[in-house]
Amino acid sequence: RKVLIVYAHQEPKSLNGSLKRVAVEELSKQGCSVTVSDLYAMQFEPRATRNDIVGCLHNSEEFNYGVEAWEAYKRGGLSNDLIEEQKKVQEADLMIFQWFSMPAIMKGWMDRVLVQGFAHEFPNCYDSGLLKNKLALFSFTTGGSKEMYEKGGISGDIRYLLWPMQHGIMHFCGVKVLAPHICFAPEYVSEEKRKEMLIAWAQRLKTLWKEEPINCSPEWYFK
Amino acid sequence: RKVLIVYAHQEPKSLNGSLKRVAVEELSKQGCSVTVSDLYAMQFEPRATRNDIVGCLHNSEEFNYGVEAWEAYKRGGLSNDLIEEQKKVQEADLMIFQWFSMPAIMKGWMDRVLVQGFAHEFPNCYDSGLLKNKLALFSFTTGGSKEMYEKGGISGDIRYLLWPMQHGIMHFCGVKVLAPHICFAPEYVSEEKRKEMLIAWAQRLKTLWKEEPINCSPEWYFK
Repeated sequence: RKVLIVYAHQEPKSLNGSLKRVAVEELSKQGCSVTVSDLYAMQFEPRATRNDIVGCLHNSEEFNYGVEAWEAYKRGGLSNDLIEEQKKVQEADLMIFQWFSMPAIMKGWMDRVLVQGFAHEFPNCYDSGLLKNKLALFSFTTGGSKEMYEKGGISGDIRYLLWPMQHGIMHFCGVKVLAPHICFAPEYVSEEKRKEMLIAWAQRLKTLWKEEPINCSPEWYFK
Repeated sequence: RKVLIVYAHQEPKSLNGSLKRVAVEELSKQGCSVTVSDLYAMQFEPRATRNDIVGCLHNSEEFNYGVEAWEAYKRGGLSNDLIEEQKKVQEADLMIFQWFSMPAIMKGWMDRVLVQGFAHEFPNCYDSGLLKNKLALFSFTTGGSKEMYEKGGISGDIRYLLWPMQHGIMHFCGVKVLAPHICFAPEYVSEEKRKEMLIAWAQRLKTLWKEEPINCSPEWYFK
């Protein structure tokens, strides 16, 4: 099995860095082939611009990124960084997105890599999206505590924050979503607790392939 | 009154470009002073990195963007592009965010400009956030139709998508949020309809200052 880890944290020594390493180790041990896109290290470009289109535009009078990326994808005319990421996505059975507090660089990866033609092409979206045989898992850390992110908590149920990414982007492309893996407020807990977080993640990964995707409908998020 | 328009679209001829110009015109006519941050034209940097911190780090052993930006803000050591945006925010009574399908460059503006110390500083968040005398309005266009973005529609209520931005970011910083202004699927309607969209926006702006902010609680989003 092939796993792509899309990783967005500036600091390898962070808990996110450790969670990424734990995943590489455990999944490799299982015999999976693991690829990491380390977005900050790659200085991945988050801005969706004309530079993503090699050669002439489909409509040079009025630039429409969605249409241009779609046309460029069809003729193999996207910029090299995008073609490489799309190859990794294409080959992956599972994509793990690892980050702290959804940063723009991660959103930029989704905006630029998962373009029309490659990931969706109306009416092929949601259950018939073009990436429909793939799985995704959002693994991340928060600044706020678990209590703040509960229903009725000041920040609201953490699932509310996941809707735009898990449903609006992943499900839109046909990707099935496994339950998120969340480490709350690692900056405010003991070293001991942080170690437990790493162990729990490694533990979960051991039986990951037996998990069923969540039911990615409003009920799961807003019930 | 002072208005800051944070604008993220690559093409001036787009409907988003026109909506931005309509707002500049109408608000200037009212005697407001209007500033535009045209993010793509500025090639605004969406990545939150060590480059945002001028001089030495607070902790050079382990880079924590949130902590470093906070410390740098306090000593006036953020990079110039951020200091300039923060000045614009500081002076504004109202911020209008104009975009198509929330792009990473806009998220990057929020990640990097609205840092701890400037926009929030625990426990000064949500109703006591540091930008509590300001208003924000999200004005944007979608790819999908109104029906797709209704409760029960395939994409779910559009308000679900607004929660992370309006509540998680704006409300978190104390900013009061006016009802969003949404133009659905301008790419699929007639030129006539697009003109009506521009007129409706100009019309709304005429009485904007009399509007009450929404009740930015889960009820507004998920009822």
